[in-house]
Amino acid sequence: MIYIPDFNDITKAEKLIRPYIKHTPVLTCHSLNKIAGADLYFKCENFQKVGAFKFRGASNAVFSLTDEEAERGVATHSSGNHAQALALAAKMRGIKSYIVMPNNSPQVKKDAVAGYGAEIIFCEPTLEARESTLKTVTDKTGAIFIHPYDNTKVIAGQGTAAMELLDEIKDLDCVIAPVGGGGLLSGTALSVKALSPKTDVIAAEPEGADDAARSFKAGKIIPSVKPNTICDGLLTSLGERNYEIIRNNVSDIVTVSEPAIKQAFRLIWERMKIIVEPSSAVTLALILEKKIDLRDKKIGLIISGGNVDLARLPGYLE
Amino acid sequence: MIYIPDFNDITKAEKLIRPYIKHTPVLTCHSLNKIAGADLYFKCENFQKVGAFKFRGASNAVFSLTDEEAERGVATHSSGNHAQALALAAKMRGIKSYIVMPNNSPQVKKDAVAGYGAEIIFCEPTLEARESTLKTVTDKTGAIFIHPYDNTKVIAGQGTAAMELLDEIKDLDCVIAPVGGGGLLSGTALSVKALSPKTDVIAAEPEGADDAARSFKAGKIIPSVKPNTICDGLLTSLGERNYEIIRNNVSDIVTVSEPAIKQAFRLIWERMKIIVEPSSAVTLALILEKKIDLRDKKIGLIISGGNVDLARLPGYLE
Repeated sequence: MIYIPDFNDITKAEKLIRPYIKHTPVLTCHSLNKIAGADLYFKCENFQKVGAFKFRGASNAVFSLTDEEAERGVATHSSGNHAQALALAAKMRGIKSYIVMPNNSPQVKKDAVAGYGAEIIFCEPTLEARESTLKTVTDKTGAIFIHPYDNTKVIAGQGTAAMELLDEIKDLDCVIAPVGGGGLLSGTALSVKALSPKTDVIAAEPEGADDAARSFKAGKIIPSVKPNTICDGLLTSLGERNYEIIRNNVSDIVTVSEPAIKQAFRLIWERMKIIVEPSSAVTLALILEKKIDLRDKKIGLIISGGNVDLARLPGYLE
Repeated sequence: MIYIPDFNDITKAEKLIRPYIKHTPVLTCHSLNKIAGADLYFKCENFQKVGAFKFRGASNAVFSLTDEEAERGVATHSSGNHAQALALAAKMRGIKSYIVMPNNSPQVKKDAVAGYGAEIIFCEPTLEARESTLKTVTDKTGAIFIHPYDNTKVIAGQGTAAMELLDEIKDLDCVIAPVGGGGLLSGTALSVKALSPKTDVIAAEPEGADDAARSFKAGKIIPSVKPNTICDGLLTSLGERNYEIIRNNVSDIVTVSEPAIKQAFRLIWERMKIIVEPSSAVTLALILEKKIDLRDKKIGLIISGGNVDLARLPGYLE
């Protein structure tokens, strides 16, 4: 039996990481409220350190280590926000981090991770190569593997974003979060159901990477196969711990089309004047696409991150 | 003698426009603090209604009108943020607005102004044509001309942004604002010197549009001639009222180079994850360029607006 985190883990995480994370603002936008026909409250984790909620989970994982564990360093395989988040958290604790990255990762991502002082180990761009390279690294260094989402401390850390949102905005009808591997969604769900049981937790997922929606319906984890979406943060399959929490605490997982994601993405940039990743736009896309009725509701949306290669912007705005 | 507004006008403005404007957040950014070697507090008027501080002044002007005046409607010539701001303020009061725009204005700006219900009157793209067309419109309709910056109510409205900033952040060493016509700068200076006399007010101006810096040195208004900068909001000459306030309340007007503006622009987008106009980036550019020593200071920066044509982004990031 694996241990499934609960809200108690999130309250502990909140106390532990408070000095290290940024308490992000909740923004509103009159013109988006009008377009959506609802009251929207955007929890802006794009303003979080390293530009994404991932820093919450990574810092909780790193600062939860005993001194003996910490001395061995931490390791992960990731080319995305978790890599940067873990590297920065390790740097803040003054310990080593080893990041396994595909050798075809964009230079900007390599630079960012290296900039936080991580040791990068390159591998072939396959899941098998990532996992075997990681194993070689942890075997050799003794570093502790911090999974990007299927990890109790990571889930607990991610849950602190919704905790802050609910502390600031009362009586939300629902909270919408994106779902990829399920780290953010599972942490969000634990916080929301503990702090405001009548608030629904709804997940938004790209149609082109709908494994979580299918898993939710099927009652078991169905892995993601050849996902195809501009939401590069939402390509992975659900983790075990994440799935257990999601199936017990999430009301619905709703898929959204690529045109709706692009429309929502453009609206957030143009109307809210904030920079978000396409993966963050699925939450507003869910509201705009109206597969479920959210008219006149008071809705919290977790804006997961803002790390966009600006050179790719024209493609996102097509 | 023209009437020069004072802080009393700003406190009145604040009470009048409070129900209409957005109380914008003050954001901080750890990594920009490190780069700047100072503590930076960004007052985010890019999140203001219509995407710029201009809505504060326009709404103060519109809601200050008597019912008899209001019935005649309001008019201005502008292709920029003031046009949208006046159109929206008029719409909120339920009165007519007439906006004289050069016939070569970008379609997106025409659409925005029309979208707020304004009547657009096109003219040739010269200052003479704008002024004569405006006179024809006001003669014919009786509409009241609301100057974009050389107007008591407009100046008072713009001053409410710094009022909010100083209410939230105490003991600032200085506040930096961009300067074009001087509406924002003069309002900012009145608020800062009234609320925190020891806080310096410093203006940032593009080298390629340095009429305000030259006027400040010369002791008289020197008009802007053929300005050349990416900061399209900072091309105009100082107004009379604005100049009077600026020369008595501003410590310095510092020019910044185009490369520094572009560097600051990119840093704000990439590190803060917010969308700002090039005109807003001059404030951070001033700090980065280090012509004056602001090391370890606690600095407020007025981010004036966020209306950017995203298609022009690649040019700004060169």
